Amino acid sequence: MAEEITPEFAALVLDAQPFSRLVRVRIAVFEPGRAVLEVGVRDDLLQQNGFLHGGVLSYAADNALTFAGGTVLGASVLTSGFSIEYLRPGRGRLLSARAHVLESTRRRAVCRCDLVMVDGEGAEKLVAAAQGTIALVE
Amino acid sequence: MAEEITPEFAALVLDAQPFSRLVRVRIAVFEPGRAVLEVGVRDDLLQQNGFLHGGVLSYAADNALTFAGGTVLGASVLTSGFSIEYLRPGRGRLLSARAHVLESTRRRAVCRCDLVMVDGEGAEKLVAAAQGTIALVE
Amino acid sequence: MAEEITPEFAALVLDAQPFSRLVRVRIAVFEPGRAVLEVGVRDDLLQQNGFLHGGVLSYAADNALTFAGGTVLGASVLTSGFSIEYLRPGRGRLLSARAHVLESTRRRAVCRCDLVMVDGEGAEKLVAAAQGTIALVE
Amino acid sequence: MAEEITPEFAALVLDAQPFSRLVRVRIAVFEPGRAVLEVGVRDDLLQQNGFLHGGVLSYAADNALTFAGGTVLGASVLTSGFSIEYLRPGRGRLLSARAHVLESTRRRAVCRCDLVMVDGEGAEKLVAAAQGTIALVE
Repeated sequence: MAEEITPEFAALVLDAQPFSRLVRVRIAVFEPGRAVLEVGVRDDLLQQNGFLHGGVLSYAADNALTFAGGTVLGASVLTSGFSIEYLRPGRGRLLSARAHVLESTRRRAVCRCDLVMVDGEGAEKLVAAAQGTIALVE
Repeated sequence: MAEEITPEFAALVLDAQPFSRLVRVRIAVFEPGRAVLEVGVRDDLLQQNGFLHGGVLSYAADNALTFAGGTVLGASVLTSGFSIEYLRPGRGRLLSARAHVLESTRRRAVCRCDLVMVDGEGAEKLVAAAQGTIALVE
Repeated sequence: MAEEITPEFAALVLDAQPFSRLVRVRIAVFEPGRAVLEVGVRDDLLQQNGFLHGGVLSYAADNALTFAGGTVLGASVLTSGFSIEYLRPGRGRLLSARAHVLESTRRRAVCRCDLVMVDGEGAEKLVAAAQGTIALVE
Repeated sequence: MAEEITPEFAALVLDAQPFSRLVRVRIAVFEPGRAVLEVGVRDDLLQQNGFLHGGVLSYAADNALTFAGGTVLGASVLTSGFSIEYLRPGRGRLLSARAHVLESTRRRAVCRCDLVMVDGEGAEKLVAAAQGTIALVE
C-alpha cells in the first residue's frame, strides 16, 4: 500500500470532485475495508416517475467502490470496471451506498456495494447491488 | 413492442428527468436499435484531477442503454443491470454515449454502449464501454 | 414463489445436467437463500499453467448463482446475466462456490457468489467474486 | 506489446489447457484484434432441458475474450473480469464465440464477445453477449 488515507483526507478528495458537490454526497464511514457514501434525495436527482434516477445509484456505487478500494490501496486508485444490478425503484429520503473490500492484493481490490434507500422512519430497502475491481494507478 | 417512441417523445422523457437536466444531457440520435446521448463537459462534471467524473460516464451509459432498449421495446422499460469497463480518463469537450441494441426478444434487449470523448478538433477517443439488459416493465 | 425445492431435488437437477457431470460438481449446501457447489480439482480442469481454468470458475459461479436464486424463486429459473472479477490464480484441492441471495422480489433475485479455493490443509483463499440476477421463467 | 502470437501458437496454448480439451474447443479465427472459438454441441455439454449449459457459454466467452486480448497484448495476459448477459437458450449444432478488441492501451484491452449458436442449416442466432477487460500480467 502507498500511504494510508485518513477519513479527513477522503472527505477532502470527495469535496474536490465538482460532480460529487453537484450531487451533494457525503462520506458517512471511511475505515479500513469499508466506505459508506450518503446522498440526500431531492427533486434534482429524480427520474421522470419520481424515483431516484438510476444514474445517481450507479454514480454512488462507482464512487463508493473506489473509496472502499482506497482504504486498502491508498489514494492513487481508479475503478477498473464495475457492474450493477437493479432490483427496485429508488424511493425514500436518503441513499446509502455501502461498499466493502471483499479481498485485495497489493495492486487490486475486489469490492462490493449495497445500495440501500432509507425512508423517513429509518426503514431500509436494498434497491441495487454493485461489484467491481479497483486498481492501483501505476 | 408496446408502442413505438418518436425521437420527440424520447426527448420529452429525457427532459422530464430532473437529474438529466442537472447533468444537461441531450439526445443526439434516437432511431430503431440506436440511441446516442451527449453531455457537454463543464467544470461541474469533473473529478478531483480535472477529468470527467466516472459517475458521469456510468450515468450516461445507463441512460443511453435504456433509451436504446426503448427504441425496440417501447416506453415502459427499465435497466435490469449493466457493467462498465473504464479504459482511459475522460478528457475532451464532449461525451458521446453511443448505444445500440445487439439483439432483443419481445421482453428484453441486450444493449451495448461505447463511451467516446470528443475534443475541440473533433478527434474521438473511446474511454469506456458498457453492456446491459433492458427489460419491459410488466 | 412457485414450489419450494428440496436439497434432494436440487441434487437431482444438478445430476440431470450432463455438463455438470462432466465437470463433476456436487451440491454441498442448499437451504433458503444459500447454495454451495463444490468441484474437486483434477488435471482435466486446469489451464496451461497448472491452475484451475477460469472457465471452471465462471461455470461454477453461474451455476451456484442459479441454484441460490432457485432456493427462493423455485425450480423454473434462469440466469439473466452475471459478472465475475478474478483476483488470483485458482490453486488448491477443492473449489467451493458459495452463493447467497442478497435480496429478491417475487420474480427476480440478486445473488452473489464467493469463489474460494481450499488447499490440502483446509486453508481457504478467495480467488474470484461474482454477482448476478436470477429470473423466474415466465 | 510483448511478442506477437501466431495462430499456430494460440492453438498450442489452447491445446495445453486440459479443460479446453475436455470441452473440445478449437480456434477458428486468430488475427490482430479478433479471436473466434468454436465448440461442437454434444450431449456432454448440455443442461437438464437439452440446451447448451450456460457454463459452456460463460467458459467460451471468458476464453475467447482472453484470446482476443492476447492478439494485441501478447501471450502473458489474464482476464481481469467479465460480464455476460444471456438472451436465449443455446440450441443448435455449434457454438461460435466471436470476440474482438474494442480498444486497448499498452497494458489493458477492453474486449467484447458475441455468443452465436449455429444450427444444422448454418442459420445463426445470438444467444448471449459478453464484455470484459484483459490485462497484461506484470
